[in-house]
Parts: sequence; structure tokens; C-alpha cells
Amino acid sequence: MVDIQDIRDAAKRIEPFARKTPVETCGTLDRLAGREIFLKCENLQKVGAFKFRGACNAVMGLDDAEAARGVVTHSSGNHAQALALAAKMRGINATIVMPSDAPRVKRAAVEGYGATVVECEPTQEAREHNAKVIVERDGATFISPYNDHRIIAGQGTTYLELHEQVADLDALIVPLGGGGLLSGMSIAARALNPDIRIIGVEPQLADDAAESLRTGRIVPQRPPRTIADGLRTSLGTLTFPIIQQNVDEVVSVSDEAIVCAMHLIWERAKLVVEPSAVVGVAAVFQEDFKARAGMERTAVVLSGGNLDLSALPW
Amino acid sequence: MVDIQDIRDAAKRIEPFARKTPVETCGTLDRLAGREIFLKCENLQKVGAFKFRGACNAVMGLDDAEAARGVVTHSSGNHAQALALAAKMRGINATIVMPSDAPRVKRAAVEGYGATVVECEPTQEAREHNAKVIVERDGATFISPYNDHRIIAGQGTTYLELHEQVADLDALIVPLGGGGLLSGMSIAARALNPDIRIIGVEPQLADDAAESLRTGRIVPQRPPRTIADGLRTSLGTLTFPIIQQNVDEVVSVSDEAIVCAMHLIWERAKLVVEPSAVVGVAAVFQEDFKARAGMERTAVVLSGGNLDLSALPW
Repeated sequence: MVDIQDIRDAAKRIEPFARKTPVETCGTLDRLAGREIFLKCENLQKVGAFKFRGACNAVMGLDDAEAARGVVTHSSGNHAQALALAAKMRGINATIVMPSDAPRVKRAAVEGYGATVVECEPTQEAREHNAKVIVERDGATFISPYNDHRIIAGQGTTYLELHEQVADLDALIVPLGGGGLLSGMSIAARALNPDIRIIGVEPQLADDAAESLRTGRIVPQRPPRTIADGLRTSLGTLTFPIIQQNVDEVVSVSDEAIVCAMHLIWERAKLVVEPSAVVGVAAVFQEDFKARAGMERTAVVLSGGNLDLSALPW
Repeated sequence: MVDIQDIRDAAKRIEPFARKTPVETCGTLDRLAGREIFLKCENLQKVGAFKFRGACNAVMGLDDAEAARGVVTHSSGNHAQALALAAKMRGINATIVMPSDAPRVKRAAVEGYGATVVECEPTQEAREHNAKVIVERDGATFISPYNDHRIIAGQGTTYLELHEQVADLDALIVPLGGGGLLSGMSIAARALNPDIRIIGVEPQLADDAAESLRTGRIVPQRPPRTIADGLRTSLGTLTFPIIQQNVDEVVSVSDEAIVCAMHLIWERAKLVVEPSAVVGVAAVFQEDFKARAGMERTAVVLSGGNLDLSALPW
């Protein structure tokens, strides 16, 4: 299990490589939400997403013999870029298994960081199979996007920073897909600020986590339709129990609310954020949320800023 | 004349109201520029532009009798919003004279801050005349967007912050329109870091400043065509001599280079910046600029982030 010491160790390990991201505030946002909102800007993290923290922790924590054999993952999202850059920084090989229908721009980004891309059929089975083949062939270390202790500890460092940057937080709101960021941050938050209210937010069109918590078992994701493409994954076997234990509630937001929140963050906070990054902002605008007592000082994590600027949803 | 002490006084005056903006870095930018670039993010300033610093300094520096009679300016740009918000914070009236062809969204923004908008014919004469009428009628204080000692001192606070945030800067690159930001920052920079190289950047389609420096007299702006709408003004009688004295050179960039730099800052630095804000970034990408020795550590000011998100130039 991951504990606060693992997260402190991760913070030390990634400190020379990762960015300490700023916390921004926005008067318009506070007025609309009816409380003080602190935006933890992981869109300004290396590779434009919090994913770099976990990938960097995993790569930098390998011993030299392991590192020499390289790392591998299957992903077409921010984790792929994060792992590619972390491997480049360590001077080792990264192989990314990508579905053949992945956007060219994502493939180019990963190759830009010097990683090897292996194409496969666009199915989960093909992705896993191809990654396994590389692990067996090269002795490379497989690094999951979220279901890995090193990743969870790395993502948890986001809360360590936030805790230094903003005093007396009442609530923490985190986007929820596979659960790596939420589980990691929740461990640090419970250790440093036991009474903080911890809320995960998922798209209504990908609300498997709420159902998983309700039923007590991991529910697979529905077919991906939400615009929040980073949150289309289901919970992992490692992240689920941490979230069960630490998280007070999971709320969901519509795609319309996501687009609206994204426009507001671009227009008023002047930050480029991707749809998945703003589910927490969409949540604090909901009427029932605004009506709640407490949570005067609420932190909302903006998880990333990678998207196609030529295809904006407005 | 404005000196470093005026700028320190301004910093103290605006400190409770203005934001201390972060400095961001970006690996891609450093590679493309061939040097270390530090982005001073005034797009994250209140109202989304450095203009708030000067307007706030001017408004907060009024004595109570002056303040009670309100403030007035003519502008359809960021200065209008900045003055409106500063006046709102002090609890006094602001009247903004705006040409009748100003975009509705800009008018709405100013009214959103509680200011009174007075429409006039879209000519410089009509703008000045209408502002003068209000000064005479109400005894309001006229606050120019840049040709005012209080404004110059306020904008100069940007350098005080930057100086604390980044050690050993070799060069400072600042967008140049009316010259308020460049003149203010240059005073602080010469006082705190006498050997720093100070460079103003203007659009090729609005390169009146270079010609003014060449000929030794203020050359009026050409008809406004550049996409960098915040830089379409000519130098002021107060800003020109400061720039003559402190600034090492003025360079110009094409509109194509501005759009390209803007896309890069959005895509890689994840910051929403307006065309006027990125002329400095466009400058550091020019081949002759990259070839220069020295300037290992160069600060570039991103001056603002206000633009219509539904009409992007790509």
C-alpha cells in the first residue's frame, strides 16, 4: 500500500525533473461558485498534465539494471507522453503501444520525446498483448497509467505541493478516471489534513466510479462517449480500495457543463485546459453544490491542457 | 519623472489588489529560441493584463476628494477594464469613453465591472473631446492608458516582481505600443540590473517606435492593420524620452510570426495569450536573434490574454 512516506519519497525523487505548478485564483470563478476556489494548475506541469509526476517517479525509482532494459506502456493519452519524457530524462528506452486509430498528433508528440511507438489493433486485448510481448522480449518494465503503486505515489505529490501553497483547505475536488490522481492525492490529504472533504468528479457519460462505489465492485467503463477523453477508463484494483476508504463522495457532470466550464477557464483564468481537466470546475457550478455549507476554501485540480487547438468545442 | 522609488511606492500601493503573477518556463520554447526563456505571465494579472497595475496605482493614489469625483478615460482595450475594476475596488465612479464601433463584448466587460460607458464617434478627436467634457463636468480625474507618471510607475512594478523571481537575467523583452509597460519596466531594470539588455518589440505593421527612435521625434501610428490590436498606439510624450534613454533596441515582427508564436504558447505553455502579448516570443524565434551571443537568460513579458475565443486566427 501507498502511504504518506511513499509520497514524500516520490516528491524528493521527482523534484529535479517535475515542475512545481502554481495555484491560481479567479474572482469570476469565486463569484459563480459562491466560495473561494484555488486552482491547482497541473496543465502547467511538464508534458501538460499531472501524469508526468507518476511516470517520473516510476522511471526514476528503477534500479540501474531495470532501467537499462527500458519501460513500456499502452496508452494514447497523457501517460504516454509522460512516460516518454521521463525515460528520455533518464536516458533509457520507452516503448509505447498505441492503437492504430490514435490521432497522428499524439503519436508525433510521443515520438518527439524519443520513444518508440508500436502500433496495434484498437482493442484493449491487443494493447495488453503487445505490451506483454515487449516486456517478455526486452525485460522492459511495464508501467500502468494508474494501477501501480509508484504512479499513485507520484500523483500524490500534487497534494504535498498544494498543502504548502494554500492553508486551511476545507475541500479537495479531483477529476476521476482510473483513479490514480484521486487515490494518490487522497492519501496525502488524509495524512496532512484529516478533516478535509475529498470529492471525485467524473463525467455523467462515464460514471462508472459512482456505480463501483455503490455496488462495492469495480464496474467496467461504458463505451466511451464523453468529451472528457482522459476520464474514459475504469477504476483499477489498486485505486478502487483507496478511493473507497478516503473519498467522501463522487459527483458527476454533464458534457455540456464540461464545455461551459472549459470556456470559462480559458476566458477568465487564461489557462488552456482540456475537457477532462475541468470536471471539478463544472461540479462547483452545480446548484446543489453551491447550496452546501462549509467548503469555504475549496481546491480544484486542473489536471491537464493537452488538446487539439484546431477543434475546439465552441 | 518616474524613478525606482516611485515604482517601489506603486508596488506597495497595489499589493493588496493586484496579483503577483507567476514566471513560467517551457522546454520547447527554450529549444526553439536557443536560450533560456522566462515568461512573465501578465495574462494572469487581474482583468487579464498588466494594465491593471498602472490603473490600480493611479486610482489608489488619488486623495479622497479627488477619488470622490471619479475617474475617466477613453479606451476600448484592456486599460478600460483595468480602470473600471480599480475604481470598483476603491468604490468610486469610472466613466469610459468608447467608440461606437467597439466590440459589444468589450463594452459588456467594462460594464460588468460597474463602470459607466459613454459612446462617441469612432475618431480620436471625439474620444478626447468626450473625455474632456466629463472631466470638466464632474471634476473627474483623467487617466491616460500610458502617458501618465502614475501609470508608468504602476507598470514598472512588473519588473520588481520579475527581479525577485528570476536571478541573473541578461535580457528583458517587452511588447511596445504606447510604451507604458516598456518605459516603466526599463526604469526598474536599469536601477536594479544596470547591464541588462532591454528590448522593445512592435509589430512590423505598427513599427512607429523604431522610426521615432531613428528620427528622434514621435512618429504617429500608421492606420491600424496588425492583428496585435493592443500595440496600435503611438508613443507618448512621457514614455518616449524614457525609452530613448533606457532601451537598447526596438525590433519588429510580422503578423504571421505573431500568430505562430501565439499558437505555440497556447499549445506548449498552456497559456491563453492575446496577439499583442506574444510579440516578444515571436522576436526570440527570429534567426538573427537566435544567432546573437549573450542573453543566455532572457525574460519575455506576456502582456495579456484578452481576446475573442470564438475568432481564433487558426
